[in-house]
Amino acid sequence: MATTAWTRRHVISLIDFFPAEYDTVLQTAASFREVLSRRTKKVPTLQGQVVANLFFEPSTRTRSSFELAAKRLSADTLNFTPGNSSLTKGETILDTAKTYLAMGTDLMVIRHQQAGVPQAIADEMDRLASLVGVLNAGDGQHEHPSQALLDLFTICTLLDPERPRLDLLADKKIAIVGDILHSRVARSNIWSLTASGAEVHLAGPPTLLPQLFADCGKDRAGKLFLHWNLEPALQDADFVMTLRLQKERMTQHLLPSLREYHQQFGITRDRLKLCKPNVKVLHPGPVNRGVEISSDLMDDPEFSLISQQVTSGVAVRMALLYLMGSGKA
Amino acid sequence: MATTAWTRRHVISLIDFFPAEYDTVLQTAASFREVLSRRTKKVPTLQGQVVANLFFEPSTRTRSSFELAAKRLSADTLNFTPGNSSLTKGETILDTAKTYLAMGTDLMVIRHQQAGVPQAIADEMDRLASLVGVLNAGDGQHEHPSQALLDLFTICTLLDPERPRLDLLADKKIAIVGDILHSRVARSNIWSLTASGAEVHLAGPPTLLPQLFADCGKDRAGKLFLHWNLEPALQDADFVMTLRLQKERMTQHLLPSLREYHQQFGITRDRLKLCKPNVKVLHPGPVNRGVEISSDLMDDPEFSLISQQVTSGVAVRMALLYLMGSGKA
Amino acid sequence: MATTAWTRRHVISLIDFFPAEYDTVLQTAASFREVLSRRTKKVPTLQGQVVANLFFEPSTRTRSSFELAAKRLSADTLNFTPGNSSLTKGETILDTAKTYLAMGTDLMVIRHQQAGVPQAIADEMDRLASLVGVLNAGDGQHEHPSQALLDLFTICTLLDPERPRLDLLADKKIAIVGDILHSRVARSNIWSLTASGAEVHLAGPPTLLPQLFADCGKDRAGKLFLHWNLEPALQDADFVMTLRLQKERMTQHLLPSLREYHQQFGITRDRLKLCKPNVKVLHPGPVNRGVEISSDLMDDPEFSLISQQVTSGVAVRMALLYLMGSGKA
Repeated sequence: MATTAWTRRHVISLIDFFPAEYDTVLQTAASFREVLSRRTKKVPTLQGQVVANLFFEPSTRTRSSFELAAKRLSADTLNFTPGNSSLTKGETILDTAKTYLAMGTDLMVIRHQQAGVPQAIADEMDRLASLVGVLNAGDGQHEHPSQALLDLFTICTLLDPERPRLDLLADKKIAIVGDILHSRVARSNIWSLTASGAEVHLAGPPTLLPQLFADCGKDRAGKLFLHWNLEPALQDADFVMTLRLQKERMTQHLLPSLREYHQQFGITRDRLKLCKPNVKVLHPGPVNRGVEISSDLMDDPEFSLISQQVTSGVAVRMALLYLMGSGKA
Repeated sequence: MATTAWTRRHVISLIDFFPAEYDTVLQTAASFREVLSRRTKKVPTLQGQVVANLFFEPSTRTRSSFELAAKRLSADTLNFTPGNSSLTKGETILDTAKTYLAMGTDLMVIRHQQAGVPQAIADEMDRLASLVGVLNAGDGQHEHPSQALLDLFTICTLLDPERPRLDLLADKKIAIVGDILHSRVARSNIWSLTASGAEVHLAGPPTLLPQLFADCGKDRAGKLFLHWNLEPALQDADFVMTLRLQKERMTQHLLPSLREYHQQFGITRDRLKLCKPNVKVLHPGPVNRGVEISSDLMDDPEFSLISQQVTSGVAVRMALLYLMGSGKA
Repeated sequence: MATTAWTRRHVISLIDFFPAEYDTVLQTAASFREVLSRRTKKVPTLQGQVVANLFFEPSTRTRSSFELAAKRLSADTLNFTPGNSSLTKGETILDTAKTYLAMGTDLMVIRHQQAGVPQAIADEMDRLASLVGVLNAGDGQHEHPSQALLDLFTICTLLDPERPRLDLLADKKIAIVGDILHSRVARSNIWSLTASGAEVHLAGPPTLLPQLFADCGKDRAGKLFLHWNLEPALQDADFVMTLRLQKERMTQHLLPSLREYHQQFGITRDRLKLCKPNVKVLHPGPVNRGVEISSDLMDDPEFSLISQQVTSGVAVRMALLYLMGSGKA
C-alpha cells in the first residue's frame, strides 16, 4: 500500500493536512474497501497491538465503527466508558490516558465533549517519548477528522472508484448546510474540501453561521462562500452535505422551531432541482428525519450517500489506524 | 454437519418451523456441544464475519450467551447498548439497524421490549436486498425462539444424548407453569412442543392464563390443555417448565402476593410427587428463589435442568448463528 | 516457565501464600513482561478458554488490565456489569456465577464491594466439582491480591530485573502510608511484604490506623510497625507505598480536611529527604493529586513507580491467569 507520504503520529485536525496525505488516506482506504468486500473481512496487520477507545463523550455509532476497524486489522480493543471510571474518583483525563499508555496501548482513539483534549493527550504522549498515536474521534466543536475523511472518500470513490484522489474535487461545488457554528464535522470538512480546490458553500441561519467562518477560506486552494439562505448554496451544487441539528439549539433561542428550520434549510426532493442533475446528499448521522432532510429523500439510493458514508467509515478508519500504527519502528 | 433442511435467513418465530428444521438445529447443536467439551472450545467457522448484538432491552445473561456463541465460532462481535446510543439522539430503530448493516454486519441478534421489532428489521434487511440474517433474542411478549430451542435441546439430549430429535417427545407430557400471558418464552415453547407431538399442559392463575391460549393448539401435531390450578398439569408429567414471574404483576393487581403465588403454583419437591418418577424441572432464568420454584429443588441436580439449559444455550446459539451464517453465498 | 510451586486453583487472599508461590508469580510475570516488549504482544496460551470479568463493583482501570491480560493470552473475555444485569431482577450473586460457569467460563475475575464474595463463589465452584478458578480483583476492605503482587513485582524487578524474587526485600524498609483501615490494597501488601522478611512501617492518622493492625505482624518473617505520624515511617525507607484516600472519609469525620491530611501525611519531595537516597514511591491509582502525594513528585520518574505499576499489572495478571488456567487437566 502507498504509505510514502505518511509521517504523522497523531491525527487531531485537518487544518494542516497536505494533499499527499489526503491521497494516501484515500488510496489506503480503497485497498481496505477491497478487503471488506471479501468473505473474510480481516487482515493481520495490527495483530498483537492494542487500540484503546477512550470515549469520554459516549457514542455507540462512532465507537462501533472504530472498534470494527481495529478488529478487522486484528488488533485487540479496549473500551473506556466514563460512567464507571476513575474519572468519577477524581483522576484527571491525562492520568487516565497515561494509565492506558502504561498498560501497553499502541493507538488511542479519543472523543471528548471539550475541544483540545485529544491534542493535550497527544502532547503528553510525545512529552513522555512514547510511540503512541492519538486519533481525534471528535472533540467539542473543534474537529472530527475521520468523519471528514470518510465523507471525502465517499465522494471521491463515487467519482473514480479505482483511484479516489483529492484533485477529483477541483471543479466541484459542494454545499454544507445547517448548524455550522456548533459542528466539528463542518470544521473538518471545510479544511479537507477547501484543500481540494472545490468551491465550498456554507448555508445556515445567521445564528448558526457567523461571518467569521469566511476566514477559513483564506489561503486555501478552493474557495469558501457564506449564505444565510439555502438557494444560492444549492444552485448547481454537485454534493450537499447536511449537518445534524441538535434539538437543544431551540431552547437556546438560536432557532424558532424544527419545523421552521426544515422549511428554510431542510433538504427535499424539490429543492434538489436547483442542483446538478446527479447531485448526491450526505449526512454524518444520526439523522433527525424530516428536519435536516426529508424522510423519503434520505432513503432514496439515487440521491442519498448516507449508507455509503457508514461503510466508508470502517475502511477510512482502518486506513488511519494502519497508517498511524505502521509508522512505528 | 447436517444442514440440508436449512433455508431460513431469519429466526424470528417458531410458529411455522418444520420438524426437519427443529431436527437440523438439534443435530447441529449436538455437534457444537461436542466442540464445547474439548479444551479449545473454538471453531473457525465464522472467522471474519461480524455478529452485532443489538440489545435495545438490556440483558447481561442472554447477551453473554450470544456473545460467547459468536466468539466460539471465531466471529467478531459488536455490542449495542441503548444507554449511550443514537436512539437518545432521536434516531429510529430501523436507522440504527441500517447503520450496523452499512458497517458490514453479517448477523444481527435483536432484543427489544416491543413485539415485532426483529421482524421489522428483518423485513428492512430483505427490502434492501442485504444478506444479513436477523435472530430474535426476545421481543416484548411475542417470542424468544432461541430459548425454546435450547429448552428443546436440553430435553431431547436427556432422552437421547447421541441423536437428539423432535420425535423423542411424541409421547411425553410437558407442563408449562406460571405467567403464560406475559411470557415470550411460553409462546415459543408452545410452538416447538406442540410441533413435537407432545401433550402440553399450561397452568397458571386465570389472570395470567387467558382462555384464548387454547387456540394455539389447533392444527398442531401435539395437544394443548389449559388448567387454572396446578395439580392436573403436573399429574404424570415428564417435564415441568416454570416461567419467571415479574414482580410488577402484583402492583398491576394480577396477583395477590408472591407468597400466595408460590403456595398455588410454586414447584416444590412435594408437588413433584404427582409427576412421573424421573420428572425434570426447567426454568429460563433468572429464578426468583422460593417463588416459581423452591430454593432446594432448584439446586438439586436430580430434578433441576437449569444449569444444563444455560450450557445448551451456547451450543444452540452457535448452531443458529452457524446455520444462518453459512446460508450465504 | 517455572510453575513447579503452583497448586492453587483460586487466588483470594495472600495471607497463606508461601514464598515459593510468590517466586513463581514473580518469575512467570518476568517472562510475560518479556513478551510484552515484543511487537506482537500475544501468546496462544489460553486460546479457546473463557475469562469472565464479573465486576459487581465497577472499575474501568482494573477491568481493562485484566481484560488486556486475558486477551494477550488469547483467551475470550466476557464482561459482566451489574447495571443491566439479572441482579436487578433479583438473582443472587451465586446464581449469576453459576450461570457463567454453565456457559463454559474457565476463569472468573471477581470484584465486589462486600468482603468475602470471591471466596463464597470459589467455595461454590468447588462444591459443584467444577475446575473453574476464581481470582479476587478486590473485595470490600478485605484483599486485592493482584494489586499487592504487581507492587511486589514492580519493586523486585527494580532490584533485580533478570531474577525478581521475594528474598530481595529481606533487608529493606517499606512504608505504607494513609488510610490503612479501609484499604484492601494495604491488607494484601502487609501479607506479601511481611512474608518477604522486610520491615513494614504503617503510618496514618489514628482514626485510619487502629492498633489491631499490629497483630498482622505476628509470626511473619518480616516485622511490622505502626506509626501515627509520618516521620519515623519514612526514616531510611527504601520504598514508600501511598494509598488512595476516599473523600467520603471526611464526611464520616475520620479526617478534618484533605488539606490537613496532605500536611500531615502527604508525600512531598521535601519529606522524601528522610528516606534512603534512592527511595521510590508507589500508589495503586487513581491518585488524588496533591492529597496523598504532591503533583510534581507523582510525575517525576526519578521517584515515582506509578506508571511501572500499571505496566507490571498486565504482566502479573497474565501470570496469575496462566498459572490458574494451566492447572487444569
